[in-house]
Amino acid sequence: MELNITRPTLLLDEKKMMTNLDRMLEKAERTRTDLIPHFKTHQSKEVAEMVKDRGVKRITVSSMKMAEYFANCGWKDITVAFPFNPLEIEVANRLNSEGVQLTILISDPEILSKLEGKLEGKVQVLIEVDTGYKRSGVDSSKTDVFKEIIARVSADSSLEFYGLYCHPGHTYHADNIEQIRQIWASSIKQMNVLKNALLLLSPEMKIRMGDTPGCSVVEDMEGVDEIGPGNFIFYDLVMNYLNVCHESEIAVAMACPVVAKYSDRNQIIIHGGAVHFSKDHLFDESEQKFFGELVILAEDGWSSIIPNAKLTSLSQEHGVLTVSDEVFETIEIGDILGFLPIHSCLTANLMGAYMTIDGRIYEHLEKN
Amino acid sequence: MELNITRPTLLLDEKKMMTNLDRMLEKAERTRTDLIPHFKTHQSKEVAEMVKDRGVKRITVSSMKMAEYFANCGWKDITVAFPFNPLEIEVANRLNSEGVQLTILISDPEILSKLEGKLEGKVQVLIEVDTGYKRSGVDSSKTDVFKEIIARVSADSSLEFYGLYCHPGHTYHADNIEQIRQIWASSIKQMNVLKNALLLLSPEMKIRMGDTPGCSVVEDMEGVDEIGPGNFIFYDLVMNYLNVCHESEIAVAMACPVVAKYSDRNQIIIHGGAVHFSKDHLFDESEQKFFGELVILAEDGWSSIIPNAKLTSLSQEHGVLTVSDEVFETIEIGDILGFLPIHSCLTANLMGAYMTIDGRIYEHLEKN
Repeated sequence: MELNITRPTLLLDEKKMMTNLDRMLEKAERTRTDLIPHFKTHQSKEVAEMVKDRGVKRITVSSMKMAEYFANCGWKDITVAFPFNPLEIEVANRLNSEGVQLTILISDPEILSKLEGKLEGKVQVLIEVDTGYKRSGVDSSKTDVFKEIIARVSADSSLEFYGLYCHPGHTYHADNIEQIRQIWASSIKQMNVLKNALLLLSPEMKIRMGDTPGCSVVEDMEGVDEIGPGNFIFYDLVMNYLNVCHESEIAVAMACPVVAKYSDRNQIIIHGGAVHFSKDHLFDESEQKFFGELVILAEDGWSSIIPNAKLTSLSQEHGVLTVSDEVFETIEIGDILGFLPIHSCLTANLMGAYMTIDGRIYEHLEKN
Repeated sequence: MELNITRPTLLLDEKKMMTNLDRMLEKAERTRTDLIPHFKTHQSKEVAEMVKDRGVKRITVSSMKMAEYFANCGWKDITVAFPFNPLEIEVANRLNSEGVQLTILISDPEILSKLEGKLEGKVQVLIEVDTGYKRSGVDSSKTDVFKEIIARVSADSSLEFYGLYCHPGHTYHADNIEQIRQIWASSIKQMNVLKNALLLLSPEMKIRMGDTPGCSVVEDMEGVDEIGPGNFIFYDLVMNYLNVCHESEIAVAMACPVVAKYSDRNQIIIHGGAVHFSKDHLFDESEQKFFGELVILAEDGWSSIIPNAKLTSLSQEHGVLTVSDEVFETIEIGDILGFLPIHSCLTANLMGAYMTIDGRIYEHLEKN
């Protein structure tokens, strides 16, 4: 790589990214589901264009702000997969008036009283189902609550019931792929029990499932109509440690300058800290926290992971890389080192831009 | 507070901030040290102006990018308290040519070979001393290395040796104030032993100490010439749990909309996640992680901390607030709740702007 990098920079390997995208599109085709990818991971106009080139027209985002950004980029069918915030009714109406087909999430029936008569146009509604993650969504066992929501949605001329949505995020805490598949099997079952109980109210309803771990490793998607994963486009070390992706599929890497070396503790200080990587971390075999793993940058991207070379601590701007004797000797002040990130969504959000491995800059939605 | 807040917003109480600043200025006067405040915490032009109004002329930053930002704001004396990155020699030369008195950190003698003959003008040098934190800096026991660095700096016409710098960041991991004072006493002693050993080479050298915990609670600063804390301007829950500040001194709070409520688990979902707060956390008495504490927003700022009302988990955009029955009943969807942040530097960096409690917007240096 002959890039002019002097500061922490987020590299994007577009080939890997497009392979990840194509694999997920194939999975959708094979399982007869529609892929409505979540753009919260990349939040990038240029990445979005490449997704559009593959025929994708419907997308998912996680905030109204992101919906506005992608609407400005020309996207016309956007699901905001976050409990609808009643303070953003005006934004919804503006997007609607601009011709965006908005789909919102109802995660608590209380929101409906706040919306009554205030939304304009026709907004589609997904009810968020909690199948055990216990973050947001209506508990799947509360059939009556679902019935009430559908009745109230049907009675509101600005709302249109679309279906049931589930982000079974407990897959992120699974110990292995088998557990991820069990969580999905159980979630799909709960969603379909619910669908059957509600079928008279809405015979056409769709079932949509989120989460990258499940969408990546589950093959049996009987009973699911649509999938909305996000992280898969880049993947990261969290997904790699879950065995959801191979490390060679991780499509982003941080490039960070070496600024100091301490031979008595085999530690190398890089410019790359919590404001670049985020404080998300994993634990190694000896239960030691780490914040990223070393790769060697090359002409066409980066190497596989260098064993025993981890970012063992981060402060605001400093990263501390702990390595073996052999690796220590090969690294000099002024070198640029590569690091696979723990959580690519958070790293991309902090970095605010991408550099492709041939040196083009892609934008990322600005800060909050 | 009659602010028009509809999305996660970082509130700044300027009165608290100025009280924090004035207290640190008084501390500096009392201990006969110069305060060279670290601007990495606020990274804000407007906050910087308020600091300037108190007579401060010399500042500290943690990256060359921040140095450029504050140079553009008119600051003329800037210490970059981060191991100098040889890939940014051009930036240093540009700042120098613009009339900025730059002070850089030498944290490893190896950097000097990279600088030889390349810096222009006159750049001041602080040698970073490691007194036990073990992040960056030359181990305080290696007197010969310090001698070598001073000799090489003195031989380079573009460099001028200024003194010794120490950020004893292990104070952040102290269990109590007494430990913080012990760490400082030990660090000051190590710095002065070193100074005495080097005095013949540089009779005028200054000793500068960083870190907010120490600068806040240490009264005996005999042997220290300059202090460079940053976090004190806002403080945060990390500092409060260390007993370094009172909660009423925390000058920033997040304002976040309530989007869903789950009565069966006393949990409230807010718009406010890892991309707003950062993933930094503390542990409560039962060793449970938390990411922020609830305060009630009011006309003139916010209340004291509401007991047993903590953000118990964060994902990208969601925050989960776990509260008592009584508090649960008082909160509605559409309300704006306040939260004291765990680590104000990271939260401010993510939020990218401040809203004062009378509604003005202050900027924050853009993303990386």
